[in-house]
Amino acid sequence: MRTSDVFDLLRDGQPRTRADLAEVSGLARSTIASRIDALMRLGLVAPYGGGRSTGGRPPALIAFNPGAHVVVGVDLGATHAVAALSDLSGQVLGEVRADLDIADGPDPVLAWVTQAVRDLVGTHHRSMSELAAIGMGLPGPVEHSTGRPINPPIMPGWDRHDVVGHLRREIDVPVLIDNDVNIMALGERHQHLPSEADLVFIKVSTGIGAGIISGGRLQRGAQGTAGDLGHVHVAGSDDVVCRCGNRGCLEAVAAGPALAASLRSSGVDAETAHDVAQLVRAGDLNAVQVVRQAGRDLGEVVATLVNLINPSVVVIGGSLAVADEQLIAGIREIVYQRSLPLATQHLRIVPSVAGERAGVLGAAAMAIEHVLSPEAIEASTLSLVEPALPAG
Amino acid sequence: MRTSDVFDLLRDGQPRTRADLAEVSGLARSTIASRIDALMRLGLVAPYGGGRSTGGRPPALIAFNPGAHVVVGVDLGATHAVAALSDLSGQVLGEVRADLDIADGPDPVLAWVTQAVRDLVGTHHRSMSELAAIGMGLPGPVEHSTGRPINPPIMPGWDRHDVVGHLRREIDVPVLIDNDVNIMALGERHQHLPSEADLVFIKVSTGIGAGIISGGRLQRGAQGTAGDLGHVHVAGSDDVVCRCGNRGCLEAVAAGPALAASLRSSGVDAETAHDVAQLVRAGDLNAVQVVRQAGRDLGEVVATLVNLINPSVVVIGGSLAVADEQLIAGIREIVYQRSLPLATQHLRIVPSVAGERAGVLGAAAMAIEHVLSPEAIEASTLSLVEPALPAG
Repeated sequence: MRTSDVFDLLRDGQPRTRADLAEVSGLARSTIASRIDALMRLGLVAPYGGGRSTGGRPPALIAFNPGAHVVVGVDLGATHAVAALSDLSGQVLGEVRADLDIADGPDPVLAWVTQAVRDLVGTHHRSMSELAAIGMGLPGPVEHSTGRPINPPIMPGWDRHDVVGHLRREIDVPVLIDNDVNIMALGERHQHLPSEADLVFIKVSTGIGAGIISGGRLQRGAQGTAGDLGHVHVAGSDDVVCRCGNRGCLEAVAAGPALAASLRSSGVDAETAHDVAQLVRAGDLNAVQVVRQAGRDLGEVVATLVNLINPSVVVIGGSLAVADEQLIAGIREIVYQRSLPLATQHLRIVPSVAGERAGVLGAAAMAIEHVLSPEAIEASTLSLVEPALPAG
Repeated sequence: MRTSDVFDLLRDGQPRTRADLAEVSGLARSTIASRIDALMRLGLVAPYGGGRSTGGRPPALIAFNPGAHVVVGVDLGATHAVAALSDLSGQVLGEVRADLDIADGPDPVLAWVTQAVRDLVGTHHRSMSELAAIGMGLPGPVEHSTGRPINPPIMPGWDRHDVVGHLRREIDVPVLIDNDVNIMALGERHQHLPSEADLVFIKVSTGIGAGIISGGRLQRGAQGTAGDLGHVHVAGSDDVVCRCGNRGCLEAVAAGPALAASLRSSGVDAETAHDVAQLVRAGDLNAVQVVRQAGRDLGEVVATLVNLINPSVVVIGGSLAVADEQLIAGIREIVYQRSLPLATQHLRIVPSVAGERAGVLGAAAMAIEHVLSPEAIEASTLSLVEPALPAG
C-alpha cells in the first residue's frame, strides 16, 4: 500500500481519523502515521477543523487539503485564449481571457500564457511556489508523449514546437499539453459527469472531432489521433471533396463551413458555424433543415462509434451544438435506429453543459490529475521519506 | 512503492540482487527485503539458481518464478472446447480438446470444463493447490462485471447463467469470463505482439467482431459490447436484411454465411465460412472475388475504426481470414485510401499468427493477468505481512 493509496482514501474530501484509515486499508497504525506525515509535508492533506488543536493532543481528523496548491488551465483556440486558476478540487478561483490569434506563432501566444499564469497567481494572493502544474489545450493534433503540435493545420509556426520546454523555461512546473477536444472531454466529465467512465465528447464547429474516455481514461491511440471523426466517410457524399483530399468526409458535409456554404447557395448570408447557429436560433427554416440533416450525417458516424466503443454518454459540444436541439435530434434519430439495443439501452446523447468553458475546465482537470496521480505522489514522497541507501 | 511494484521490477524474468532492486526503486534495503519475503511466501519469486545455496549465505539473485503456480485457459466455441494448462509465463504445459455443442447448455459443458481442469492438473503432476485461476472465453456477449452471458444468440440455456459461481462450486479459484473475440485479442498480443499497446483483433467467421486493446488495456465499454463491428452499417447495402433486424449490416454482407449464399446463387456448393475459405485456397475464382469484395466492405468499417481508435496493429483472424491474403488485401485497399496519413503511417494490418489457438492462449493470459495484477498481489500480501491492528 503506497502513500498514494492512502491519499486515494482521502480524495473524496471526507475527513477521517488515522484509526478509520487503518481499518479500511488493513495497514498497521504506524504505517498509516508515516504515510499521513508524508502527505502533510506535501501539503495534500491537513488536520481537519482548521489547523492545530490547542490542547496539545493532535487533531483526530485528517482531510484532503485542496487549497494548499493551485494549477492553471489554459484553453487556446484559433482566435481566443482563456486561462483559469483552480485549486486541487477543481474549484475555479479566477479567470482571464483575451482575443489572440494562434497564427501569430508560439512566441507572442506563450508570452501571453506565462503572463496570464503570473497575473492569476498574483491577483489571487498565491505564491508561485504554490503552483503545482499547468495544463493546456491546443487547437490541433498534439503528440501526447512530447506535448508537441504535429502538422497543425491552423497553427503556422507551431509544427513540432517544444511547447513544454518553452513554458518551463519561464515557469518551472510540470506542463501537460493535449488537443482541444480531449481536454473538452476531460472538462465535461470532471465538472458535470464525474461518475461516467465511458464518455465521448464530440465537438462540432469549424471541424469535427471527438475526445474518447473509456474505462475512466482518455484514449489517445498509437499516434494520438484517436477520435478523428471529421474524416470518416459518410455514405452518399462522394461528390463532396474534403480539405484533406478525400471525398465524402463527415467534416466536408456536416461541419460549420459546409452548412454555411449550403445556406449561401440558397441566398442566405452565412460564413461560420456561429452564423449557422444564430440562424437556427432565429428560427430560419432553411438553417433548421440543414442542421437537422447534419445531425443525421453525424448520427451515421456516431452509430458506428457506439457499436465500436460502447460509451454510456455521448456529449455534443462546439459552436454548432448550441443550435437548439436540432443537431442532437438528428443524431439521436439515426443512432437509435442503427445501433444495437444492448449498446443503446442505457446510452444518453446530451448537449454539453460546460459549453465554452469545457476546454479551460478540462485543461485544469488534466493538471490536477497529474498532481494527484500515484506516480507524481510517489515521486514526491520518495525524496521525502524513503531516501535510498547506497547500493552495494 | 507496493509489493506489486517490486514484483513488476522482476516480472521481465531477469534475475536481480536485492541491491539492484533497491537502486532502481529508490527504496531502503530493509523495505526491499520485506517485500521480497512476501513475494517468496506467495511463491511468485524465488532464489535464482535452483534453491538454497549450501554455504549458509543466502543466494544473491532473485527472479520471477513462473512455474510455482499454474492457470487453465478455456476456449468454448459453438461446437468445440479447448483447455490449456499454462504456467505464469504463459508457457503451455498441456492441452485437451473435445467436440462439444455449446447449445447443450451449462450443465454438461461446464462439467467437461471442470473435469478438463482436474485432468490437466493431474496429468502434469501438479496439485490443485497450485492452480491460481481459470480464464474462459464464451461465444457470445458477456457482462464483464459478473461474467454472465447476456442474450447470447447461439447459447440456449446460458442467458444470465452464473458461470463463475457454477465453476467455483467445483473448483474454488478466481474465474474470469469474457467473450471469444476479447480473449483472442489478448492471446494474439500476449503470445506474438507483447509490445503493442494499441491492438485491434478482428474475427471474421460466421459473425464479425473485434477485441480492442487501447493504452495496453482491453476496452469493453459501458455494457461490455465494445468492438461490435458486425452490425455497423455498410454504405450501399440497404437491400440486405441482417439477422439483427436492421439493413445493410457488415455481417450481413461480409461474414461467412453471406459469402456462401452468394456463391450458391452462382451454383457453387458452399454453406459455411470454412467452405468459402477452402474454395479460395483451391483457387475458385468466384470465391476469390467474393472474399476480396468482403475485404473491401470490411475495409470501410476498419477505416472508420482506425480514425476513431488509432491502433498500431489490426490483426485479422477467424476462419475466413485463413482464406489466403485476399481478405486482407481488400481491407488494406480501402483503409490506406480512406484513413488519414498520420493514423496509417505506422499502421500494420496483419493475419493472426496465433490462429485457432488465439482463444485458448488469451483465456490463459487473462487468468495470468489477474494472478499477477497489483490488486491480486496486494490482497494476498496484506493478509500475509501486514495484519491490521484493531482499530480504536
